[in-house]
Amino acid sequence: MITNNLILMAAANEEVERTPVWLMRQAGRILPEYRKVRGSVSGFKELVQTPELACEVTLQPVDILGVDAAIIFSDILVVPEAMGLPYELIEAKGPLFPKTIENSRDVADLRVAEGHELQYVYDAIKLVKGELNNRIPLIGFAGAPWTLLSYMVEGQGSKTFSKARKFLYQQPEAAHSLLDKIADSTINYLKSQVTAGADILQVFDSWAGVLSAEQYSVFGIPYLSKICDAIDEVPLIIFPKGANYALDELKELNANVVSVDWNASTEDIRILQSAGKAVQGNFDPAGLYASRDEIELASFGPKGHIANLGHGVYPDTPLDNVRCFIDTIKAFRF
Amino acid sequence: MITNNLILMAAANEEVERTPVWLMRQAGRILPEYRKVRGSVSGFKELVQTPELACEVTLQPVDILGVDAAIIFSDILVVPEAMGLPYELIEAKGPLFPKTIENSRDVADLRVAEGHELQYVYDAIKLVKGELNNRIPLIGFAGAPWTLLSYMVEGQGSKTFSKARKFLYQQPEAAHSLLDKIADSTINYLKSQVTAGADILQVFDSWAGVLSAEQYSVFGIPYLSKICDAIDEVPLIIFPKGANYALDELKELNANVVSVDWNASTEDIRILQSAGKAVQGNFDPAGLYASRDEIELASFGPKGHIANLGHGVYPDTPLDNVRCFIDTIKAFRF
Repeated sequence: MITNNLILMAAANEEVERTPVWLMRQAGRILPEYRKVRGSVSGFKELVQTPELACEVTLQPVDILGVDAAIIFSDILVVPEAMGLPYELIEAKGPLFPKTIENSRDVADLRVAEGHELQYVYDAIKLVKGELNNRIPLIGFAGAPWTLLSYMVEGQGSKTFSKARKFLYQQPEAAHSLLDKIADSTINYLKSQVTAGADILQVFDSWAGVLSAEQYSVFGIPYLSKICDAIDEVPLIIFPKGANYALDELKELNANVVSVDWNASTEDIRILQSAGKAVQGNFDPAGLYASRDEIELASFGPKGHIANLGHGVYPDTPLDNVRCFIDTIKAFRF
Repeated sequence: MITNNLILMAAANEEVERTPVWLMRQAGRILPEYRKVRGSVSGFKELVQTPELACEVTLQPVDILGVDAAIIFSDILVVPEAMGLPYELIEAKGPLFPKTIENSRDVADLRVAEGHELQYVYDAIKLVKGELNNRIPLIGFAGAPWTLLSYMVEGQGSKTFSKARKFLYQQPEAAHSLLDKIADSTINYLKSQVTAGADILQVFDSWAGVLSAEQYSVFGIPYLSKICDAIDEVPLIIFPKGANYALDELKELNANVVSVDWNASTEDIRILQSAGKAVQGNFDPAGLYASRDEIELASFGPKGHIANLGHGVYPDTPLDNVRCFIDTIKAFRF
């Protein structure tokens, strides 16, 4: 059905004629065309909540950069909002939750999102699918339970997320209850994205790296696992950023692809591949500040690799270098 | 000479009667006695630059908490300042360099610190040594070249240090020149601390974890190595935070002790121990928010371990839990 289905084939560990590529945060501030749309609205959330605009910026990197997948333009914090905890996005500062989760009563006050609360996302997905006309797959996404909890408790970004980690140590029962509600909400949300047309899904555990292996095993893995087990409609990518310490547990999850950051070693990648996982990543986004002579795709082998950065592309990355990266990967043959 | 020399013995991999313990940032905001002194001066830098006050707050955790080493109260950014790049400490925000390093000309304008610029640190060390009267060792310290470069280029703290990493990719020659000047300045500074009385030294590479293995191998390891090779007067601890991906290179350095964070696995610790290194760490500082039933010292074995946190103690840690941690380790027998 989909003309260029390289990413779906790579996710299924099937042999591909070349390595597929997309970039985390490809729809965004690196593109002048995005900044123009962004300048026409009052804020980032208006962009996320207006399906026509979300569709437009989702398609920009497809047409301009020639990536092998689109990813729906949205934000991981729409799920906490659908659960009853609204957030704001402060320009040049990041997300802010005016009210945060402090105890089990706050957790009890939250609802499990049924999915329908986020109709604007599904409407955007439908518009994008219509425009893509089966040229390439569309990626849907959500935040992982631990990462969403960390924002909901901390209230904003943090270098240490010590407030969120304190919550795990001091109120483990409330934490488990919250993580379970987030996991159930996320499952409903991801399934609704598939119904709307998403061809493959990614779950971002952006702050996995701040936990100890012991804590991640108790508060991270089980809820990621619940999501992986519930999603069987489409392939699933998990991105446990910074959790290379937990690969032995991560490789057992029912995900097709594990996305790794630039700290992952060749040995780490082999651990995942030996367990039958496809691997996504793991180029250093700062590497795109320089034009690279050579991209070492060979170390991944000819199967089961989706080329990407180890994190979102940095906003001030020269666009020519982004193009060079994508074009180099698309030209590479094993 | 020193009555309680457990830390020096552990650093030398000698058998000890019990595991020694100290806490990164033990002299600081967790102690009401510290906050009182801090409240009496105009800013953090005044505390650092006034030997009598630096001595007073250095000794507080020794007397109040009973740790097995004192660490001189200072800041890693005194070295860039001694090289000609002044910094400020903005309350509740962190360090700020009004002028940053942008190119090779800026690097050329910096001098190699000869050591004497930081007389106030040596004066504080001498005062502390007098007051300690050889009860326990005094730790001197400095920042590692990559970590200092990251502040000097970035100008302030950052979640990604993408500006500093861009500098490595776009201006590698200027970066190497700067790293070499920092390494030479640091060697002079550390040797002067030893002359003043420091019994053991720690080098903090706080931002090692944001680099790829490839970049750390080129821009981090060689300058850490230069420092390790130059210091032979006293034992040396290196703390490459987040660089568990680089243990195979780190274990070859001429350091006696490698300090690891809470992401380090038992296997990581074995890699270091097999190479003859003592290991420091690696309790999760957030673990001190809860009172722990049990501290697993057994996993380190009876030799070559200095108990510590995997990072600085968080400011709002309950003091009773800090005491419990220290007392539990001091009571433990293999």
